[in-house]
Amino acid sequence: MEHLPQRLLEGYSAFMRGRYAAERDRYRELAREGQTPETMVIACCDSRAAPETIFDTGPGELFVVRNVANLVPPYAPDGKHHSTSAALEFAVQSLKVKHIVVLGHGRCGGIQAALSPTAEPLSPGDFIGKWMNLVAPAAETVAGNAMMTASERQTALERISIRYSIANLRTFPCVSILERKERLSLHGAWFDISTGELWTMNPESGDFQRPEVD
Amino acid sequence: MEHLPQRLLEGYSAFMRGRYAAERDRYRELAREGQTPETMVIACCDSRAAPETIFDTGPGELFVVRNVANLVPPYAPDGKHHSTSAALEFAVQSLKVKHIVVLGHGRCGGIQAALSPTAEPLSPGDFIGKWMNLVAPAAETVAGNAMMTASERQTALERISIRYSIANLRTFPCVSILERKERLSLHGAWFDISTGELWTMNPESGDFQRPEVD
Amino acid sequence: MEHLPQRLLEGYSAFMRGRYAAERDRYRELAREGQTPETMVIACCDSRAAPETIFDTGPGELFVVRNVANLVPPYAPDGKHHSTSAALEFAVQSLKVKHIVVLGHGRCGGIQAALSPTAEPLSPGDFIGKWMNLVAPAAETVAGNAMMTASERQTALERISIRYSIANLRTFPCVSILERKERLSLHGAWFDISTGELWTMNPESGDFQRPEVD
Amino acid sequence: MEHLPQRLLEGYSAFMRGRYAAERDRYRELAREGQTPETMVIACCDSRAAPETIFDTGPGELFVVRNVANLVPPYAPDGKHHSTSAALEFAVQSLKVKHIVVLGHGRCGGIQAALSPTAEPLSPGDFIGKWMNLVAPAAETVAGNAMMTASERQTALERISIRYSIANLRTFPCVSILERKERLSLHGAWFDISTGELWTMNPESGDFQRPEVD
Repeated sequence: MEHLPQRLLEGYSAFMRGRYAAERDRYRELAREGQTPETMVIACCDSRAAPETIFDTGPGELFVVRNVANLVPPYAPDGKHHSTSAALEFAVQSLKVKHIVVLGHGRCGGIQAALSPTAEPLSPGDFIGKWMNLVAPAAETVAGNAMMTASERQTALERISIRYSIANLRTFPCVSILERKERLSLHGAWFDISTGELWTMNPESGDFQRPEVD
Repeated sequence: MEHLPQRLLEGYSAFMRGRYAAERDRYRELAREGQTPETMVIACCDSRAAPETIFDTGPGELFVVRNVANLVPPYAPDGKHHSTSAALEFAVQSLKVKHIVVLGHGRCGGIQAALSPTAEPLSPGDFIGKWMNLVAPAAETVAGNAMMTASERQTALERISIRYSIANLRTFPCVSILERKERLSLHGAWFDISTGELWTMNPESGDFQRPEVD
Repeated sequence: MEHLPQRLLEGYSAFMRGRYAAERDRYRELAREGQTPETMVIACCDSRAAPETIFDTGPGELFVVRNVANLVPPYAPDGKHHSTSAALEFAVQSLKVKHIVVLGHGRCGGIQAALSPTAEPLSPGDFIGKWMNLVAPAAETVAGNAMMTASERQTALERISIRYSIANLRTFPCVSILERKERLSLHGAWFDISTGELWTMNPESGDFQRPEVD
Repeated sequence: MEHLPQRLLEGYSAFMRGRYAAERDRYRELAREGQTPETMVIACCDSRAAPETIFDTGPGELFVVRNVANLVPPYAPDGKHHSTSAALEFAVQSLKVKHIVVLGHGRCGGIQAALSPTAEPLSPGDFIGKWMNLVAPAAETVAGNAMMTASERQTALERISIRYSIANLRTFPCVSILERKERLSLHGAWFDISTGELWTMNPESGDFQRPEVD
């Protein structure tokens, strides 16, 4: 008996025959020289929104944090364990990435949970509830708009939370300093699972628009 | 001017012409019916170790948390924001995944940092230092072993920390209960960036072995 | 000197040489037999959103009301002059249309005015202010959401007001009775001036989606 | 299943392939810069008399109100909802149009209703009856003229009501002031559905004449 789900073993076998075989030199070089990704992506855990798939990227291209609803907490140097802040520090200070992309997506389960605050917690620890508290003020405002449909409220909060994460990125001194020096740029994007559309955030207005691609 | 790095726009365009075009029906169904991944993967942010690439999986298959060094903190229902615990709760309680895989890899920058505790922090907040404190006792022991080479110490701690994350998974009541009922199984795996080899953890002994694949 | 703007005279001349010449028989028949449009459209006065253009329709196809922001007031048989209600009554009772489409659009000046209620009235009569009072409760709710961008608030209210107009259509007994008998159906649509996209309203959820067209 | 009548979806598809494809830049500019139409048209809802068709105009050219029988009520700053007055205020004060055209047409159903005041109301609300009351004095006089044929009475009232609408436009202070300053001019026109002839109103005499066009 093998120690991984059969599906993953088969997938791994396909990887070795396919991508690894084709990019063996690239993998060797990446092992020898270390990674030098230009872009950090903060994405959601959702199984339908993997950044490597959406951006069709290969090994070494994207340094990726994934948490529920692609949130960035505000800067808090309090000595606690901060998963996302640690990854951010590593990407910016050690890898010296040039771009950070916050990638949200439609039909996000975390955002949905934030819009239903009175629902029962998923477990006594209520970790999702606590985590989504990061966007609680926006969630309350949006949830209270009974004239928008459930789907419209969901999309609205998904986009607000991308802007919120970008604002929080700027609370980290290393991010704001490098951005001011134009050595780091911040981006927002939102992926529509159904249509495959990618909407990118206009950095001035915060609006999401579809880029011109072929 | 577009609002994403040019490389990502080109990659997105390739995705739309390629994978999305080929799997449009799958994406539509995933949007309509929601995601039902069977597997959660806890992986590292490293740009060389994306689980969707290593396991050659398509949309909807893997629910993925990525943090530095693929760590799971122990259960701590203290009302704070816990990124990884929130994702775990969501995967287990809401998505009802059947498998959780902790996927480590070689040449991990976070593990390397943990083995050099006297190095200067990357920033005043020292978020990586605080985050890697999660494996500090193991790191101290391994770092103190002068008879292993630097590379052996690194691999040793990478594997220890996978076992440590799996042990921490079992501190979550929902995980241990479902594992006892055989409705959830926990797995460890370690990916060698250079050779592409995947080593899977023997659940009884904790040893890492190469699986038999074609 | 002619008594119409030169541009309109030239356009009329082009119409006579073009469309009228091509459809002379159709015009004669429409004059002789009377109009029998199957569809009534309630559209905005905006110069960028003419329904005959967007739907590429010819003479006799669409019975069209156009007012600022494509609003339908609620049923009010009070003996006053009601422009939109009169057109509705004529379309439903006399022409027996089978469809009513409320057609909104992006960047609507009326909706923009409704979202800036503290702006100075355009004239002492404040006719736009009074007219847009029809959607005042929704406008207040949307305007108060400071976490959405101005453009997002605008689109939200444009879509809310389409749903509101459709709800008001159902306050007319003749509409609700015929709809129940399945002899009349109500539709919502929203046109994006910039991209040319048409989004149609899902009658169950009220959500706006892009239809599948070639 | 789509949410619009099939005919409109097909027409929209033709628009996208045709006019939109050809005028994409114009639409983008109109979205970005806003509309700046020089002319407001007050036209009838009749499906055979769309002003964009008769004047062969493109996007951004005509700001269009359409109500039954192209009527303008007199100035009444009474705090009620006034559809046509609101559109007029917006066109004159905000868009600063240079021309207002009242466009009537032959075989107008509203005018016909006004000439048959003893006919049964179309619905208990009698919205058409109330709306056409705006031209009741003229309608009574014309209806009482037994020496004109029915068709002559109809054309007579169609033209009287165009002059009446133009007179009412001048009851709005903003219109009369701007007309006096020669920054706004008012026009009347009447369209013959059968022959396609356009008759324009001589502003001095009020007579309708055929303009000289190629």
